[in-house]
Amino acid sequence: MHQPIVTLSSDFGQADAYVAAMKAAILRYAPHVRLIDVSHQIQQQNVLQGSIILERALDAFAPGTIHLIVVDPGVGTGRKILIVQIRGQIVVCPDNGLITWSWRKWKGGKARGLIWRPRVSSRTFHGRDILAPAAGMLANQTAPEKLAPRIIKPILLDIAPAGKSARSGQIVHIDHFGNAITNLARRNLSRAGISIRVGGQTIGKLKKTYSDVQPGEPLALIGSADLLEIALRDGSAAKKLRLSVGDRVFLD
Amino acid sequence: MHQPIVTLSSDFGQADAYVAAMKAAILRYAPHVRLIDVSHQIQQQNVLQGSIILERALDAFAPGTIHLIVVDPGVGTGRKILIVQIRGQIVVCPDNGLITWSWRKWKGGKARGLIWRPRVSSRTFHGRDILAPAAGMLANQTAPEKLAPRIIKPILLDIAPAGKSARSGQIVHIDHFGNAITNLARRNLSRAGISIRVGGQTIGKLKKTYSDVQPGEPLALIGSADLLEIALRDGSAAKKLRLSVGDRVFLD
Amino acid sequence: MHQPIVTLSSDFGQADAYVAAMKAAILRYAPHVRLIDVSHQIQQQNVLQGSIILERALDAFAPGTIHLIVVDPGVGTGRKILIVQIRGQIVVCPDNGLITWSWRKWKGGKARGLIWRPRVSSRTFHGRDILAPAAGMLANQTAPEKLAPRIIKPILLDIAPAGKSARSGQIVHIDHFGNAITNLARRNLSRAGISIRVGGQTIGKLKKTYSDVQPGEPLALIGSADLLEIALRDGSAAKKLRLSVGDRVFLD
Repeated sequence: MHQPIVTLSSDFGQADAYVAAMKAAILRYAPHVRLIDVSHQIQQQNVLQGSIILERALDAFAPGTIHLIVVDPGVGTGRKILIVQIRGQIVVCPDNGLITWSWRKWKGGKARGLIWRPRVSSRTFHGRDILAPAAGMLANQTAPEKLAPRIIKPILLDIAPAGKSARSGQIVHIDHFGNAITNLARRNLSRAGISIRVGGQTIGKLKKTYSDVQPGEPLALIGSADLLEIALRDGSAAKKLRLSVGDRVFLD
Repeated sequence: MHQPIVTLSSDFGQADAYVAAMKAAILRYAPHVRLIDVSHQIQQQNVLQGSIILERALDAFAPGTIHLIVVDPGVGTGRKILIVQIRGQIVVCPDNGLITWSWRKWKGGKARGLIWRPRVSSRTFHGRDILAPAAGMLANQTAPEKLAPRIIKPILLDIAPAGKSARSGQIVHIDHFGNAITNLARRNLSRAGISIRVGGQTIGKLKKTYSDVQPGEPLALIGSADLLEIALRDGSAAKKLRLSVGDRVFLD
Repeated sequence: MHQPIVTLSSDFGQADAYVAAMKAAILRYAPHVRLIDVSHQIQQQNVLQGSIILERALDAFAPGTIHLIVVDPGVGTGRKILIVQIRGQIVVCPDNGLITWSWRKWKGGKARGLIWRPRVSSRTFHGRDILAPAAGMLANQTAPEKLAPRIIKPILLDIAPAGKSARSGQIVHIDHFGNAITNLARRNLSRAGISIRVGGQTIGKLKKTYSDVQPGEPLALIGSADLLEIALRDGSAAKKLRLSVGDRVFLD
């Protein structure tokens, strides 16, 4: 039997029962789904970071997958909830910019405004009370247009993969290993002899893998997200080079 | 096919293989169950916190769910192990007060003392060696009375949801966002004009949701657990107001 | 239907989408497996710690289980990838010593060098691009010899369970509770009257369980891994006694 996949991401952490409560809600509507956690350690209310996590999830999973992501500082206000069809997959998320990185990468999708509401709902935990049930219904074959008839324009953050001819970009994410991931892609590095510079430090030419430099040395490479990363062999580039999200990265 | 759900909670953290060892033990007895982690970040030996996590799990899941929770400072002593039938669900836990919050909320249940023991067991990891196998057997349709024939009175902590006419309560849990959850419920707030006070600070009247105050401002609201919470819009109430578990909360 | 189990361990942490990306890769090759996380909090590049986590996973699970473990400082170099048949189970891991603790405990296995490669792969994330797909194929009944025809000698770390007549050993792991786990086993403690000493402090004779000493007191016992552990009742032995991995432990 086909077992649909629902992934979950949030800024809820894993100490409380909040994630389990969302899973219980999904299972009430779709008892047969497979649940996969992507990350619940998105920084609190960090919509940009959530947006990048979501793009990674959409990139990894197969068509038919449903992605639930809740970073929701606007819960209880009039902010909309989106059902987005993109890349053969479906995203359920607050309309606050979480879709940005995927939307820009895959040149848009079909975004709809969720109007379906359950009979009872809290004012503070729509993840459990509205978004998870909606994800469960979608996993159980309810058509997106039943829950969300109107196509709308999603809110987008003012950040994007760098344009084709960009000569600089910025750090968009620091991962668990201290790798600094940028919004620059391979196409930005096609000119011969480009040298990468960040925070006043010259990193040098693009390398292929960590072992192309000595232990403790920084390097620039195209990472597993197909983006330019600043890394450090056997260590944390972010710590050693004092890098932060938002830092400019130059292609000299 | 019906797939029974077994949830797992503990103070084991997620760095060691302890949780996986419990899952392996459950699966030996019940290969078809669905396993859901609730929290493994309960503070070490914090039975009160475990008790609240367990109540949240019982509240979230459907009848038939089995909940295994292990916060067990008394492992290796003569402390009993409970099988509790409550709210149409089953809990397996040490008899050390973990059942308190659920027992008080749902006005009791049927608590039994587990006498079944596997042939071999460690003296230090009953979670893996006794409780998880018992949960597996229950998930595989063994009747509670087979494993635990005698009904007993569970040990209860000296804490409870506040009584109907209580004019004060206390903070029982601080969540990942710094929300301070109390043992006061909506019924305690039915008098007109009640103002909430904690730690010498007046929070004011009950609000509906975070956006009813300005960013950085504290508020009191009925949270997703149906309890009075002290929160802060876009921040941590616990940090800003220096709140801790046990602090008194007054309804003026 | 039989549902094969694939466990996952890594030093990836749980904040990024790396673990989910490995799961997605496994599911493309084996849509019906059960996925169980063992630990993703192995210290970065700590192969010894990974080796001990892997032994715990092999000890816990039933024959037929497949274990994927990725602690891979040599990714992108010429380091080999292993498929190891051991204890009726299969391990997929980099050939960098991760198999050591299991190999020594169960007196070897059958280690093969993976030659199968997918069409496309990153240079920096073989966990997602090579090891997870290989684990998926094995879970979907591909024979190890198809992916890895040649039997090879795995790389082993210079650490092992202490020999039968050893009079001293060392701390190999500190767990979440601050228990210090050693490479000494029950057989090393069969002489009458042995007293345990570590870091200049006499712990005394072997105890059975935590409650054999007073709260706050240290003790030595055979833990749930069947190894000598230095513990502290209701506290952290590692913190109180200032113990670290590598410290010598003496049997006087």
